[in-house]
Amino acid sequence: MPFDMNLVQRGARLRRSPFFEATQRHGATAYTVYNHMLFPICYGDLEAEYWHLIHHVTLWDVSVERQVEITGPDAFAFANLLTPRDLARCAVGQGRYVVITADDGGIINDPVLLRLGENHFWLALADSDVLLWARGVALNAGLRVEITEPDVSPLQVQGPKARDVVHALFGDHVLQLRYYHFLETALDGIPVVVTRTGWSGEVGYEIYLRDGSRGDELWERIMEAGRPHNIRPIGPSDIRRIEAGILNWGTDMTLETNVYEVGLDYLVDEAKPASYIGRDALKRIKAEGVARRLVGIEIAGDRIEMNPTWWRVKAGGETVGNVTSAVFSPRLKKNIGYAMVPVAHAAPGTELRVKMSGIGERRATVVPKPFVDPDKEIPKS
Amino acid sequence: MPFDMNLVQRGARLRRSPFFEATQRHGATAYTVYNHMLFPICYGDLEAEYWHLIHHVTLWDVSVERQVEITGPDAFAFANLLTPRDLARCAVGQGRYVVITADDGGIINDPVLLRLGENHFWLALADSDVLLWARGVALNAGLRVEITEPDVSPLQVQGPKARDVVHALFGDHVLQLRYYHFLETALDGIPVVVTRTGWSGEVGYEIYLRDGSRGDELWERIMEAGRPHNIRPIGPSDIRRIEAGILNWGTDMTLETNVYEVGLDYLVDEAKPASYIGRDALKRIKAEGVARRLVGIEIAGDRIEMNPTWWRVKAGGETVGNVTSAVFSPRLKKNIGYAMVPVAHAAPGTELRVKMSGIGERRATVVPKPFVDPDKEIPKS
Repeated sequence: MPFDMNLVQRGARLRRSPFFEATQRHGATAYTVYNHMLFPICYGDLEAEYWHLIHHVTLWDVSVERQVEITGPDAFAFANLLTPRDLARCAVGQGRYVVITADDGGIINDPVLLRLGENHFWLALADSDVLLWARGVALNAGLRVEITEPDVSPLQVQGPKARDVVHALFGDHVLQLRYYHFLETALDGIPVVVTRTGWSGEVGYEIYLRDGSRGDELWERIMEAGRPHNIRPIGPSDIRRIEAGILNWGTDMTLETNVYEVGLDYLVDEAKPASYIGRDALKRIKAEGVARRLVGIEIAGDRIEMNPTWWRVKAGGETVGNVTSAVFSPRLKKNIGYAMVPVAHAAPGTELRVKMSGIGERRATVVPKPFVDPDKEIPKS
Repeated sequence: MPFDMNLVQRGARLRRSPFFEATQRHGATAYTVYNHMLFPICYGDLEAEYWHLIHHVTLWDVSVERQVEITGPDAFAFANLLTPRDLARCAVGQGRYVVITADDGGIINDPVLLRLGENHFWLALADSDVLLWARGVALNAGLRVEITEPDVSPLQVQGPKARDVVHALFGDHVLQLRYYHFLETALDGIPVVVTRTGWSGEVGYEIYLRDGSRGDELWERIMEAGRPHNIRPIGPSDIRRIEAGILNWGTDMTLETNVYEVGLDYLVDEAKPASYIGRDALKRIKAEGVARRLVGIEIAGDRIEMNPTWWRVKAGGETVGNVTSAVFSPRLKKNIGYAMVPVAHAAPGTELRVKMSGIGERRATVVPKPFVDPDKEIPKS
């Protein structure tokens, strides 16, 4: 039965992806909304999608990662103003995982940045209007830039057989892409950018479509190339990304948190010579030390369904923090997740209680992240 | 059967309203996402909800109208910078319907602005991150302001019996509120702001809850006061707002449109002495004249379901524009809506064709807005 779109939309306010028809045809059963756009998050069975991702190869419609494009003679200086990463160290043809920081050090967004030219950048966004932030900042920044949302729509191809699929599509040179590098190319004349990135912890690529009128064609071309490798469409897997220690903007990190609290310290280049928005705040926060940290947790007991709200974390009978994401890992056979807690409760081994709305209280333990270490073999079944 | 939230969310990224539990208990059957928050849009039958709105009184959870609060010694100057309306003419205790404009004149948002003090403003937002825009603008504006999202969550009480309900709740003085005026008060100790505003074209009020922990209590208190007047919860009625000529940000107006194109010229105070963002662009656009306009249309033939995408508008065989909103009006017994078309096709009486995806082409005619004139009696059945 096709998904009833009336359950999530009324009228034409929510935008559709160039792959929308394809996702309907291929049986998407749930859509959320992300960057004002419909986002297919499930094709019927989240656990089956997870197993497929870790054993085979999967295709995700992540057009909702809308781009902010920065061009103009001062585009480098402007992009470098938006993030604590030193973009002087990002060559053309490279990308970086970055945070966009507010003046108080809060995290506005955590996009993948691509440097397409000396003065040409894309930010592939999480769910906040960085277009408005960047245009607001640019008003009085005294820099000559153009800031727009281009016609660019990414797909993710993720899983251990992802290399085989992009090899079949783009030939040998794509296999030489190093992590966070990209190439600009075309597929049957469809203009794309291929990046060695992803939100899964598995081997993965993203294919950024540069012509929204050709979405259906690109989707089917990838499915066809993937058929010998058992490709299937899925939604992004929260199970797999939590296993990998990957954070989700809007819950694990927000405008009210900073990189030091959520463990993204490496996104601040301490020696960056240029100034950037939030620098003074981040220097102060680092010097003073943080009062709370996002930690890994294991929640005892039967398998849980993913938390639909921030569950309260208690210690010694008091509420001390929140669970931001938690889910059952079928291969670890444990409930795993993240909690934001005071530093006094952040050491591995610390015992906590989690109050799950409508379920009750459970024991939880602080553990190191990631849950699945890419350098260690974990049984995949 | 309760609504399966897994159809629109995965994890805790989407925020819940202080009235969320109440909307579930009262049978909401569909939720969209608006300002990163779940938004109940239907309680089972949109046409029944429409009839209830025009005959009785209705309660809507519009907590998704998130507030941007502007305070600090230069709050007036800063708020006045964001909009073409002259806020010097907005006294404390008054509100205004405003547009927030970009430097190119595009519409970033169309909030209701409330002036709570000389230097204290709220913007009740449509679906875009004005918090980020405003904070970006403030960075280098040289003005001393604080810009935050306060704990404020509006409800709408709309319909011909809305006066009776707010009278029962707040006493005689609320009946003296003029359109777009407000009062700060409390209900059983629950702090609220009551405004004479709404998104329905009917008599209506909004009750802004100022303490998110008391949402359930406020909701039930209003339902109780409304029971003798036959109150019921509904989602916002697109049928009624289109009849009234009210626009929806994100479809009828967007960042790519300006006030002159969409007929909101009255939101520009031409004689405003202070400068504001977008002034030069709007002056130029006005002087040059616009190339396209949002017009009222009637679509011939059987009743339509509301457009889920922008349907194409054709004239002389060519695509010339888009239908932004269209719906069947049960009392007018016509399909009504808005289309963005070139000025050459904007005169009342102009014949157009509308291509409805999956349905086919229909004849349409340009007509004046609003479809229901508040000064003329329209049969209500």
